[in-house]
Amino acid sequence: MSANPSKVLVAGGAGFIGSHLVDRLLGRPDVGRLVVVDNLWTGARENLAHVDDGRFALAVTDVERFATEERFDEIYQLASPASPQWYMSDPVRTISANVMGTMRLLDLLAPGGRICFTSTSEVYGDPLVTPQPESYRGSVDCTGPRSSYDEGKRCTEALLSEVARVHGTDVRIARLFNVYGPRTKPDDGRAISNFITSALSGEPITIYGDGLQSRSWGYVDDIIDGLEKLFWSVPHGYAGPVNIGNDREVPVLTVAQYVASLIPGARIVHGEPAPQDPSNRCPDLTLARSLLPGWSCEIPYEEGVRRTLEWFAARLSPPAAEGGATPDPGA
Amino acid sequence: MSANPSKVLVAGGAGFIGSHLVDRLLGRPDVGRLVVVDNLWTGARENLAHVDDGRFALAVTDVERFATEERFDEIYQLASPASPQWYMSDPVRTISANVMGTMRLLDLLAPGGRICFTSTSEVYGDPLVTPQPESYRGSVDCTGPRSSYDEGKRCTEALLSEVARVHGTDVRIARLFNVYGPRTKPDDGRAISNFITSALSGEPITIYGDGLQSRSWGYVDDIIDGLEKLFWSVPHGYAGPVNIGNDREVPVLTVAQYVASLIPGARIVHGEPAPQDPSNRCPDLTLARSLLPGWSCEIPYEEGVRRTLEWFAARLSPPAAEGGATPDPGA
Repeated sequence: MSANPSKVLVAGGAGFIGSHLVDRLLGRPDVGRLVVVDNLWTGARENLAHVDDGRFALAVTDVERFATEERFDEIYQLASPASPQWYMSDPVRTISANVMGTMRLLDLLAPGGRICFTSTSEVYGDPLVTPQPESYRGSVDCTGPRSSYDEGKRCTEALLSEVARVHGTDVRIARLFNVYGPRTKPDDGRAISNFITSALSGEPITIYGDGLQSRSWGYVDDIIDGLEKLFWSVPHGYAGPVNIGNDREVPVLTVAQYVASLIPGARIVHGEPAPQDPSNRCPDLTLARSLLPGWSCEIPYEEGVRRTLEWFAARLSPPAAEGGATPDPGA
Repeated sequence: MSANPSKVLVAGGAGFIGSHLVDRLLGRPDVGRLVVVDNLWTGARENLAHVDDGRFALAVTDVERFATEERFDEIYQLASPASPQWYMSDPVRTISANVMGTMRLLDLLAPGGRICFTSTSEVYGDPLVTPQPESYRGSVDCTGPRSSYDEGKRCTEALLSEVARVHGTDVRIARLFNVYGPRTKPDDGRAISNFITSALSGEPITIYGDGLQSRSWGYVDDIIDGLEKLFWSVPHGYAGPVNIGNDREVPVLTVAQYVASLIPGARIVHGEPAPQDPSNRCPDLTLARSLLPGWSCEIPYEEGVRRTLEWFAARLSPPAAEGGATPDPGA
């Protein structure tokens, strides 16, 4: 595809989404080298254990402290915890991974290179507009308990957008909405993986609040399809943020009930609402459809939940995995 | 006042507001040492030229790169450009001064120390609510041309608020509204100093847009009174952001006309509106009045403008300063 194979860096490439992106990138014959930088805080070495490719290298370090003389043609910045219990436990590190991490990555960009960033629907906060178009400025409490993540992401968007404006750097920004699927950490803390791991362990499925808060559940394969198109495979030259997610909005309770229906003995309980938990979240996909023709989230949550359950079941209790997702609920 | 004199650091202490804060701090007998860290990007050595005090030291460096073994009991973080033409010219440095600068300062805080931050009304963006209470989440375009400043400040508020929540650090945050007065740089680019320096130089006073956008003009002495109370002289223990400003909202055009009335030959022209210039800005001072009884902005803009004009006139054309602000308009 190219006489000069691309040198690629994926920060956070051992994470849930990052490792799927690595798989996709290694499918490109024009990639000559792929370096993952990950401190394994919320990522895991096992997410990349299947990679057997001479082009691949893993550097275990904080991205903002990654020391190298190499320069990269494509940089993907996914280094950040993404689950409230993780980022709320170390807000300084969360902001540092996003903002300082991106500053460091800008230093590592080869002339004419491209930097791509996975931002979040959390930049919209608890939205007063639904669905949320990219032009919606959001409703984020910049001193609230979720602010290290929300504002770290917003500030990184600002940094990259202004670098694009001032220096002409090729920047791509995706705002991801509630991604789920295989390779989520069992202790990640987000809804679908929580429901599944709780039920598989014989614990009750806990819903924080009444469960009527809705989310747009994007199965990871669909999301990676969107990222591939936005970041490298569709020529578009658009520098602003683009929503990437599923616009089928489904209440948390509905998903929990579906998980419970798949696992014998599973039951649902309600806990205290999470602090500043948004009441709704749904992407306006007008821009994505216009920039990335043919892309949409194809996998309904029912199918995605089943696939995720199979993955967790195989992981948590291997013998049961052969016959599907029916482990001993008392295990 | 204290057996252990305080060690104080003021980042950005050679700047317009910072240097006034330094003067106020040096009036405290309990301050044993005061280190200003300033890279003189938008600050100026001359703002501190009058300081003749053995407790005082100036370190000329970026705050985020300030190397020292000292630890400080009180840290004041004012290191940031504050005028659009300056921060839009170097957004990376702007974000770095705020976010990375504050991370560095947190490392320099002595156990039990206090860190105080001057945030901005820009965290409200182009507000849809007026006046703006601290609880208003704002309307900031996080990828717009003002975003390095707005989001750099928001992210720093997040950083400090979360450090207070997680580590119990004593944090104080002031959101300042359109401060003006002596020691503004002649090329600062903000409204009142621009109007005055233009008119004193015989240039037309340029208003960007129709001038009907309103601002809350806070004379620097009033603002420093508020900061003194919020940051050290009134016991309150409040960690959230507090609006500090003048709640008398006055259109830009009115101020320009007042400046023009003081300077013979001055005339007003209109230019293109500044990008994403907010249409209004006015602090809700309910919280400030409750926390800081007795504080309010006492100096009306007419008086503040006259004082600022006198300062600029003495600076730009010394002979005219003796008789007031009536330099040769053709100079």
